[in-house]
Amino acid sequence: MLQGSSVDNSGPSFTPLVVLELASDAKEETIAWLMGRIKDQQQNGGAELLVEQLGPGVSTQEKYNPNIFLVGASWQRLLSGAEDLGLFKEFSDGSMRAFTCANKLNFKEFKGDGDSFLSMAECQYIIKHELDTLRAKDETHVPGYTQTKLYPGKSIVRRLQSKGILIQMFPLHEKEALKRLSFSWYKKVKLSLQPLDDIKHYYGEGQALYFGFLEYFTFALVPLALIGVPYYLFDLDDYDRYVIYAVFNLVWCTVILELWKRFSASLAYRWGTLSRKKAFEEPRPGFHGVLGFNPVTGREEPLYPNTKRQLRVYLVSLPFVLLCLYLSFCVMMIYFLMEGWALSVHDEEPTFWTGILLFIPSIIYAVVIEIMNLIYRYAAEFLTEWENHRLESSYQNHLVLKVLVVSINDLLSLATLLITSQILNQFMEAFLPYWLQRRRNKKMIHKVRKIRTLEGKELPLTEQVRLEAHMSTYLGTFDDYLELFLLFGYVSLFSCVYPLAAVLVVLNNITEVYSDAFKMCHVFKRPFSDPAADIGVWQLAFETMSVIAVVTNCALIGMSPQVKTYFLDSETQLILWTVAVEHVLLAFKFILTFVIPDVPKHIQIKLARLEFESLEALKKKVKQY
Amino acid sequence: MLQGSSVDNSGPSFTPLVVLELASDAKEETIAWLMGRIKDQQQNGGAELLVEQLGPGVSTQEKYNPNIFLVGASWQRLLSGAEDLGLFKEFSDGSMRAFTCANKLNFKEFKGDGDSFLSMAECQYIIKHELDTLRAKDETHVPGYTQTKLYPGKSIVRRLQSKGILIQMFPLHEKEALKRLSFSWYKKVKLSLQPLDDIKHYYGEGQALYFGFLEYFTFALVPLALIGVPYYLFDLDDYDRYVIYAVFNLVWCTVILELWKRFSASLAYRWGTLSRKKAFEEPRPGFHGVLGFNPVTGREEPLYPNTKRQLRVYLVSLPFVLLCLYLSFCVMMIYFLMEGWALSVHDEEPTFWTGILLFIPSIIYAVVIEIMNLIYRYAAEFLTEWENHRLESSYQNHLVLKVLVVSINDLLSLATLLITSQILNQFMEAFLPYWLQRRRNKKMIHKVRKIRTLEGKELPLTEQVRLEAHMSTYLGTFDDYLELFLLFGYVSLFSCVYPLAAVLVVLNNITEVYSDAFKMCHVFKRPFSDPAADIGVWQLAFETMSVIAVVTNCALIGMSPQVKTYFLDSETQLILWTVAVEHVLLAFKFILTFVIPDVPKHIQIKLARLEFESLEALKKKVKQY
Repeated sequence: MLQGSSVDNSGPSFTPLVVLELASDAKEETIAWLMGRIKDQQQNGGAELLVEQLGPGVSTQEKYNPNIFLVGASWQRLLSGAEDLGLFKEFSDGSMRAFTCANKLNFKEFKGDGDSFLSMAECQYIIKHELDTLRAKDETHVPGYTQTKLYPGKSIVRRLQSKGILIQMFPLHEKEALKRLSFSWYKKVKLSLQPLDDIKHYYGEGQALYFGFLEYFTFALVPLALIGVPYYLFDLDDYDRYVIYAVFNLVWCTVILELWKRFSASLAYRWGTLSRKKAFEEPRPGFHGVLGFNPVTGREEPLYPNTKRQLRVYLVSLPFVLLCLYLSFCVMMIYFLMEGWALSVHDEEPTFWTGILLFIPSIIYAVVIEIMNLIYRYAAEFLTEWENHRLESSYQNHLVLKVLVVSINDLLSLATLLITSQILNQFMEAFLPYWLQRRRNKKMIHKVRKIRTLEGKELPLTEQVRLEAHMSTYLGTFDDYLELFLLFGYVSLFSCVYPLAAVLVVLNNITEVYSDAFKMCHVFKRPFSDPAADIGVWQLAFETMSVIAVVTNCALIGMSPQVKTYFLDSETQLILWTVAVEHVLLAFKFILTFVIPDVPKHIQIKLARLEFESLEALKKKVKQY
Repeated sequence: MLQGSSVDNSGPSFTPLVVLELASDAKEETIAWLMGRIKDQQQNGGAELLVEQLGPGVSTQEKYNPNIFLVGASWQRLLSGAEDLGLFKEFSDGSMRAFTCANKLNFKEFKGDGDSFLSMAECQYIIKHELDTLRAKDETHVPGYTQTKLYPGKSIVRRLQSKGILIQMFPLHEKEALKRLSFSWYKKVKLSLQPLDDIKHYYGEGQALYFGFLEYFTFALVPLALIGVPYYLFDLDDYDRYVIYAVFNLVWCTVILELWKRFSASLAYRWGTLSRKKAFEEPRPGFHGVLGFNPVTGREEPLYPNTKRQLRVYLVSLPFVLLCLYLSFCVMMIYFLMEGWALSVHDEEPTFWTGILLFIPSIIYAVVIEIMNLIYRYAAEFLTEWENHRLESSYQNHLVLKVLVVSINDLLSLATLLITSQILNQFMEAFLPYWLQRRRNKKMIHKVRKIRTLEGKELPLTEQVRLEAHMSTYLGTFDDYLELFLLFGYVSLFSCVYPLAAVLVVLNNITEVYSDAFKMCHVFKRPFSDPAADIGVWQLAFETMSVIAVVTNCALIGMSPQVKTYFLDSETQLILWTVAVEHVLLAFKFILTFVIPDVPKHIQIKLARLEFESLEALKKKVKQY
């Protein structure tokens, strides 16, 4: 079909890494042009990658999309791509350095071309980057679609994506590696730490950091859980101890967040993302604006004035979020009124039915909140899209902020329902889609069996690709972090009235590791790896939560009847003491944050050495002139 | 004397930049060795600078130090030094780039060798750097002093300084440039902004940032002063308006500190220090430890374990500072008791003498506090020295922290005396030493006149150098910033009870500009320039003060009788409202700090472009392999 290369069922002549699925009604002319650009040499402005069309497989009788393409690359091309991206690898002296082809032999794991120096996830990331930065030259529109305008420097793939000609682009799973990974990850009976390096190897740094954080967070809560259990079991009524527990909790939350920064810096250094310079970020597919010249790159691209965006954020989004906050506050008030009414009815004449009536307000409230959250989430996504952020990262930050402000509010009013809904969520997220996927899988195997005899249950590549193309797309770690954030809020905000929270969260997290791992391995398409160096805006979110926790805990302790007995003569004294303690705790928190360095000393030294050496090298280079 | 070069009175054969004063009893052997090393070529490990001994001049009859040396450098050497230091200069396209000799012709102000491309302050800084990094080779001790050990890689100048063989090293003033600068700075009658670029040109970026901050701070307070005047003049008793004034003040303080960051980033970008990579910092002269290998440079140098330093900081210095805080709190309490007693005596039987008695406690308290501060300052310097910090910057930070903690306490108790003591201070700092210096000057001119007839009052170089060697040494901006910090505290902490504060501080600052400028030009030796990109730890100090100000202002407003009348029925309500307002203000403050970007957009773009271009250049370089 394309340059006469019709692929047989045994697969293409190279290792396929990434799949491009074009619309089934995409024009021949467009496809030929795109494939030409992808294959073309770099000096002609091409991506110099290998690409072949996926054969029809066994499903010829059904309606199927013929426009699925497999993309790969030669070993040399991948190495030069790794250098373009500035990937950091372990050098022969044990430090992490940006890979360069010129001294590739000095890198520790480089054993000759064609070895496992680059992980498959890295290769796929390189290919994604090369495809994303494949730019229009002198084309004024996409061949075959005169309405789809192009201009020199525009990313071709982004334009095709935003116009729906390119349906999706995803990396392929590796069946063998996945089997090994899932075994060491969650199928083993023996309790052990998660294989973070293997996860990073297969899914990339962003995913691995999420699972690292999940595990770290779980372990960090164990001391709190252990101390909390006796409070629950023996129903200690001595409030002094509750106060001690709450103060310990607050300090502990600050310390674990600070130590996480250090731990995550160690991980990111080992994985080479800590000091990697980020390549210039491409605009999001949905970004639009008037054509102009980017002040940084000098390339022609759409520009959108920052002031206009700020006006949208401050005059529309911000009032909207505040309005929603106010609404959810009103709903909460109505709930309290309803509960008060139900309680008064029950107190007047307690029967079985009034006993049930007591639960009704909570149930109604939970349902209303769930629906409101759903609507709010859509609205937040719509608004953030409309704000027209140029970068994906900035889009994500604004979305996270919007969602969080309202979730904190939920948290303050609906803590007890949280754990139950978490466990339901895990089921909905992981096992239901898996079951659906499995059914689809079986159908396909059955179909293939009809035609050929398969050894074992392994599918041939063509069928595998088509199956993966139908798997759900993993939408990033947003929802996973949001879950953790709510749980953290639950532990920190109400620690002094409900010391068992930490125990429940630890139990939840253990099942969460398994269900998330399962979900990643069996439910979703493989996501592209994301070379993150930290957990980004979530660190800030968790820290903000721990500040709010100081305020709520101090207020709760101050309001408790047990503490009030100490200040029977003067309520003023009580409040002043509470406020003083709160201020001291907050000051202590900030000093602690300031005193604990974010990056461990030994990594600081390694980074300083790299810096020093590059300055010295510059000096030497200079002396040659 | 040294290689037979005896300099006549007409001065050396090159432009002298820096003066080295060795002890008058320094051994010939040592001097010869040091001068040899300074003159030696770079490939032999020398500094490749020019150096000549200062002639005896007219003061031969008196006892004088013959071991004064003038250091200069060839134009080529200065340019290569600028490249070593990574100085940023304006490129032909208007952006700031690190200077390299290879494409020197592409820099805007480069007009051929020997031009004014490098300011004299920059040349002096380059020479200081080259002297500081002149390292011992295989010498095991300083020739002539077998007790003064050396080891490969030890900075020779630092070792000679710490042993007292090198008394001082200072840059020379330029009489003509100084005259022009002082005219445009403070001698003009016409009111105008300070010539910050000229100040930077003559004194370097650190000084210029201080004067920039002083001026910015003065202008920023003008609105507050204007609003404050009517409150004072018409004795407005309407407390609502005081509250409005206080809230405005708090928000304003946050905003001006944030905007200063942006303004200082603009200045630092224009002066080329914003993105300059700092060269690896040498240990302080006083730093000691066991010889080992620096983990960053690999050079042999004294190492001192960080844990030991931390123990000293947390187990000795911290308790000492807390003890001093407690002591000054006790003194304050005694002062309150004394004042209460004086008031009761006066109330019982008011006479002229009891009226005077009312002032006695304040005067005693002021004197005691002044003495305690003096002792504390010495103790703080001693402790910080003892903590044995490796870097000058870390030493400075710890010292600033110690001094500030206690000054905030003074502020809280002794606000009204502040302004009077400030004006006294200005006199003591600037005009008294100037008068002494002038007397010395006149004596010298008189002596020179006796020997030759001088045209005008210009001194020959030899006498000029000797005079400057006797001028006081400027000890850095520490005390100047501390003054500003106390004034800022005065404005922000007590804004709601004393709205005239801003007016007084504005008036004080205007005279401060003049007295500081005068001091810099006529009292002190020229200081080495310091390529600072911001005001360092002081930014943090000012921000912390503005947080404390929120707390004190809310408390003061809450305690005021006028506000209490609104909450006659419930003191609890009053306190809760006060605390709520305080929390909202604090939250607003942090959000504001977060929302206002620290670097203006147009400079962010310029920095991103530089980053992008260097990445692109790397890519191109890579493709050549």
